[in-house]
Amino acid sequence: MLDVLAIGDAVVDVIAATDDAFIAEAGLVKGSMRLIDQGEARSLYALMGQAQETSGGSAANTVAGIAALGGRAGFIGQVADDQLGDIFSHDIRALGVEFRTPAIKADVPTGRCLILVTPDAQRTMNTFPGASHQLKVAALDREQIRSAAILYLEGYLLGPERPRAAMREAIAVARGAGRKVAFTLSDIACIARQKDAFLELLDSGAVDMLFANEQEILAISGCRELAGALAVMERKVPLLVVTCGERGAVAVEAGTRFDAPAAHVPDVVDTTGAGDLFAAGFLTGRARGRSLPDCLRMGAVAAGEVISHFGARPLANLKELVNP
Amino acid sequence: MLDVLAIGDAVVDVIAATDDAFIAEAGLVKGSMRLIDQGEARSLYALMGQAQETSGGSAANTVAGIAALGGRAGFIGQVADDQLGDIFSHDIRALGVEFRTPAIKADVPTGRCLILVTPDAQRTMNTFPGASHQLKVAALDREQIRSAAILYLEGYLLGPERPRAAMREAIAVARGAGRKVAFTLSDIACIARQKDAFLELLDSGAVDMLFANEQEILAISGCRELAGALAVMERKVPLLVVTCGERGAVAVEAGTRFDAPAAHVPDVVDTTGAGDLFAAGFLTGRARGRSLPDCLRMGAVAAGEVISHFGARPLANLKELVNP
Repeated sequence: MLDVLAIGDAVVDVIAATDDAFIAEAGLVKGSMRLIDQGEARSLYALMGQAQETSGGSAANTVAGIAALGGRAGFIGQVADDQLGDIFSHDIRALGVEFRTPAIKADVPTGRCLILVTPDAQRTMNTFPGASHQLKVAALDREQIRSAAILYLEGYLLGPERPRAAMREAIAVARGAGRKVAFTLSDIACIARQKDAFLELLDSGAVDMLFANEQEILAISGCRELAGALAVMERKVPLLVVTCGERGAVAVEAGTRFDAPAAHVPDVVDTTGAGDLFAAGFLTGRARGRSLPDCLRMGAVAAGEVISHFGARPLANLKELVNP
Repeated sequence: MLDVLAIGDAVVDVIAATDDAFIAEAGLVKGSMRLIDQGEARSLYALMGQAQETSGGSAANTVAGIAALGGRAGFIGQVADDQLGDIFSHDIRALGVEFRTPAIKADVPTGRCLILVTPDAQRTMNTFPGASHQLKVAALDREQIRSAAILYLEGYLLGPERPRAAMREAIAVARGAGRKVAFTLSDIACIARQKDAFLELLDSGAVDMLFANEQEILAISGCRELAGALAVMERKVPLLVVTCGERGAVAVEAGTRFDAPAAHVPDVVDTTGAGDLFAAGFLTGRARGRSLPDCLRMGAVAAGEVISHFGARPLANLKELVNP
């Protein structure tokens, strides 16, 4: 029995420190995520400085965090049979996450995310999804989906055709087994492209828990301020969780709103993975039947750890941080 | 015109934090470097925790440091045409190092070094050299060798047959052009295996500068204490440079000995690359005609930076650290 099974991008992060001038010259929008093709991945990489590689992927980071917190987590995502695929598979399994999706032998390599981190700790992400967008319905392990209390889905993967079909099938399997479905809106650019698909999913009643940041919840609700957006969106999902960066996070359930502060982080180095790890802490608490304020606190602690260093996977002992 | 051209292993480091129990259970000797084959690389990797990847290779780390210090550096080393080879090639070029050795299309993949870092900051290295040991004489760029004031060679590569032949040819080309040759003994295990070859090289008068740590200089000299080892070895090379960990470093030239302290590092995290970056600082100073005490100081500062974080390549602005 798993606490959480996630479906998401299976990519390796390629992280380099840079300055604002580089972001401007490369024509990038700081803080954004955009999809790039293999050619652009090659040309951008050639311009980037010396990098370090760590496994990434938004929902994959979340289950990595859940496993690090002692939760039982699984992951479904598509890598290719290549060296980056080996790295991704090794890292997620090394954390104790159940990861069984077979690598594909294909012309499409394992995806990667070229991440530029500026001195203000902001990250600008350029994702070449590669094999990740080749995730098919046939790759789903239905028994594994039925074995998880919560199915956690990444909005990034609701765009491309094959993974969208796989995610819809996974939702049907999970709901058929009486499991809960959680969904993250992932990124403002996803909403711009997929707003109708996202709203259709939410309005179908298929989502029990929605994760978003403030920008995303404003964009999907069409509201100008948070209170209005919460009011619109809480009618669509039983549990709504919104992160607001250094101003903390909010959860709304059954008409009641809970606010919690962000963790105090003296030296924010790289904000990559903040939302992913917030979800990890929150979901771990939820799986253990903790109160909403405690779930919010656990999310804040896990997010605080991951922004204190380069890379979107936790390095410190999260268990000790969350339960000191 | 290059200040330094290095020939060395072209590998990607795979670094994971671990504890002493893991080192003991895996039957490893803490602080050592050993060569492993692909099968063992696979089985050890499967046991390791979540890792991060950064470009490595001893002499490659040294030229990376020289470039970071503003020196003109080149590198000759063999990668395969695969994803790890792309990472190695990208990173060394991103630092401004001239790296032209074509990748080989072969069954042998790019080499990697599985590095386990214990809480005492000690690193235990397990190197699968892969394509690195396929470096052939034909891969040498003779014009590039003639263009460098100093040819810097890594002892690790004097063992395997093909790279040994390439290094010997490179020495002949460099000396024929009136260039200086520097050599590092690399590791105590290399000396155990290659003592005769190392001594033959040194006794031939082909080496102008010898780099070693204390363990290595004792092993090659057959002496029990440093002063004796220095006395034996200074007769073999015009310039002898020996690092002694936190006790600093020594240089002997023309019968005169200079001692310098190590840099003060409040929080030593990972000692991987300490000797490589010491050589980088020292050689950069030497290329600029600095005094031996100043070369030793520059070496200590560069080594101090690299042991303050994970990974064997400098992250901070070395130029500013060395010339505050």
